[in-house]
Amino acid sequence: MSTSRAVCVALDAEDPLKDCRSSFVLPEGVIYLDGNSLGALPKAVPAALKTLTEQEWGRDLIGGWNQHGWIDLGREVGAKLAPLLGARAEEVIAADSISVNLFKLLAAALRLRPGRRVILSSAENFPTDLYVAQGLEALLERSRCELKLVPEAQLAGALDDSVAVLMATHVNFRSGRLLDMAGLTSAAHEVGALVLWDLAHSAGALPLALDELAVDLAVGCGYKYLNGGPGAPAYAYVAARHLDALEQPLSGWMGHADPFAFSPSYEPAPGIERLQAGTPSVLAMRALSAALDLWKGVDMARVRAKSLALAALFLELVESSSALADLELRSPRAADERGSQLSFAHAEGYAMVQALIAEGVIGDFRAPDLLRFGFTPLYLRYVDVWDAVAGLERIVVEGRHREPQFQKRARVT
Amino acid sequence: MSTSRAVCVALDAEDPLKDCRSSFVLPEGVIYLDGNSLGALPKAVPAALKTLTEQEWGRDLIGGWNQHGWIDLGREVGAKLAPLLGARAEEVIAADSISVNLFKLLAAALRLRPGRRVILSSAENFPTDLYVAQGLEALLERSRCELKLVPEAQLAGALDDSVAVLMATHVNFRSGRLLDMAGLTSAAHEVGALVLWDLAHSAGALPLALDELAVDLAVGCGYKYLNGGPGAPAYAYVAARHLDALEQPLSGWMGHADPFAFSPSYEPAPGIERLQAGTPSVLAMRALSAALDLWKGVDMARVRAKSLALAALFLELVESSSALADLELRSPRAADERGSQLSFAHAEGYAMVQALIAEGVIGDFRAPDLLRFGFTPLYLRYVDVWDAVAGLERIVVEGRHREPQFQKRARVT
Repeated sequence: MSTSRAVCVALDAEDPLKDCRSSFVLPEGVIYLDGNSLGALPKAVPAALKTLTEQEWGRDLIGGWNQHGWIDLGREVGAKLAPLLGARAEEVIAADSISVNLFKLLAAALRLRPGRRVILSSAENFPTDLYVAQGLEALLERSRCELKLVPEAQLAGALDDSVAVLMATHVNFRSGRLLDMAGLTSAAHEVGALVLWDLAHSAGALPLALDELAVDLAVGCGYKYLNGGPGAPAYAYVAARHLDALEQPLSGWMGHADPFAFSPSYEPAPGIERLQAGTPSVLAMRALSAALDLWKGVDMARVRAKSLALAALFLELVESSSALADLELRSPRAADERGSQLSFAHAEGYAMVQALIAEGVIGDFRAPDLLRFGFTPLYLRYVDVWDAVAGLERIVVEGRHREPQFQKRARVT
Repeated sequence: MSTSRAVCVALDAEDPLKDCRSSFVLPEGVIYLDGNSLGALPKAVPAALKTLTEQEWGRDLIGGWNQHGWIDLGREVGAKLAPLLGARAEEVIAADSISVNLFKLLAAALRLRPGRRVILSSAENFPTDLYVAQGLEALLERSRCELKLVPEAQLAGALDDSVAVLMATHVNFRSGRLLDMAGLTSAAHEVGALVLWDLAHSAGALPLALDELAVDLAVGCGYKYLNGGPGAPAYAYVAARHLDALEQPLSGWMGHADPFAFSPSYEPAPGIERLQAGTPSVLAMRALSAALDLWKGVDMARVRAKSLALAALFLELVESSSALADLELRSPRAADERGSQLSFAHAEGYAMVQALIAEGVIGDFRAPDLLRFGFTPLYLRYVDVWDAVAGLERIVVEGRHREPQFQKRARVT
């Protein structure tokens, strides 16, 4: 290997983000390269949950909605997310899941562009994005909604004046390819279409500038780079210029202008609250809220720089190892075309990932043949990357991934 | 007052459910008559959250989805709910909020009854139920969906062959009136309509028999009588006979037959899992799961008997107090027509509730003029009821509710 372990130790010592790691619970003997799937546990989260249960719910009961601000958590968490998205606080709300928020915003987008029926996306998009669009298409029938899929690289070329909304994921979950948000947003606007960006693999991994790029709509989840815990609440962004006219069909009581008037007629809240549907989980919101506090004072340019440096190191180490020559890079080679992950194809990829996990190096596998490694700059060290690749090399050299226990497919990959 | 406090103490000593109270955290000096809005904290919940965060998420990270069964929580919690609903485990799933689940099931009901476009409900229904139906109506346009509202007492008479689904809440949130689930379900079926029952104020308060009554669809929440915490996950019930044909529009990846195949085409899971949309909050699911364990071995007939006895005692004590003569009962007088709450109208109701809360007796207020008191047999005692009415009487006699601090409206009532 070219870069030595000692160099990695030195890089860690100079890392301007090195102090962030101590805010997380990280198990001994584990190198975690799957924070792009589920972020690690922030130390602040168990404490926040203890306060919520014992000091608030347990003691103040129903009074917690007022006394402890539970009723404002969607907005409060949205305001903490906003700087990570390059948005204003009043444009972001935490609520529901990505799937549910996509449904709200796709339906809203069709209404904002009457006479247009096409949702343009790519077949490489994350499946739930496609499934939700298919659900809306089936509900509305083809005369009012049609999901049109083209290869990812042909999205811009497929834009025309039938397109109501371009739905794209900023960082592809398989390849890690970073789409050109500025270019695609402009191109969509040129034909009068809206854009809806899925930021699941971008927020917390790289700087975002939704307002500056005139993005219309966006969604994302709280459980990857944002460390809000398994199934953490998702969020929705609506550019301020669209809020007044935005009508979304999941018009539950928490999105009403005055929920506690208990009026029989729905009237949307004036702002981003109209994106709320039912009562949010206060437990889940508080966990995410505590996790988001870790970003205070963190410079996203430094996060991006370290993310790219970690990935570059990983790639260099893999490519300098003859044992790993069969790993085929499926992420873009150019750093500025990548999010914060690297993917490699290998016919034995599933077993290799399982054998690696057994060694304490946690990556993940995406069907049919991808080994996927995510880089989370807040808690991953250069030396972790060195040790991870060394572990992968050892497994392949020893043929450990061919042991029978690593062939069996788990439910969740 | 007629029944003495000593009699109440004796009733508590004989209460077959008296041991359940020790499973809850109940603050000193507080009498909680709002468990119908937010259930009290089960002692098992903070422990469950500590295990989940520190032993599972913190230690096993992404592996928790397989190793700790996170992926099955929707089904697992559904299976714990099923006996409380009179349903089979495979007919119930915990997911999302009531609002979101209503949208799924209303859209599904319209598809199960092609050619019919009416959702029949009453203007007295809980607002979010109406708002969600209005959202669907606006999305689909009137030619395909129309929400028709009639007075609650006229629901049966308004059924005809235009009705796709009768949507009703079993226990009215204002009056506490218990609708005739058996009669309305039969009447709906006679005209070929489906029924969708909202069980928010019934599950955990009284025995339910969804399968026996041939109910088609139902929803409910986890945070009232089920004690799952603020904004706990909701649930959806689909009678087994409808599952194969049920298509719901919020077709997120967790409802896919094989989510981790990452296929670009949606294919619904064969069973109740097709009601799942996005990734559920594992924190919220685990809290609800722990709370539901308290129902093991609890006889719902005893819960119902105690609920009615507590309410009867409350009513007797109020009506035997000349100071409380201005409270006008707005719940049915007949016990078998009530759920597990009593509501009284009073022009100064809001201030009376606030003054009562200041005394440590927590009920709630529903606009425009209702004082509402809920009875949760697992942790409420007869002596609590005696003390609560005595407190209310004292406030009115002393005119304490006229103090200025009790006039100011809070955000959440």
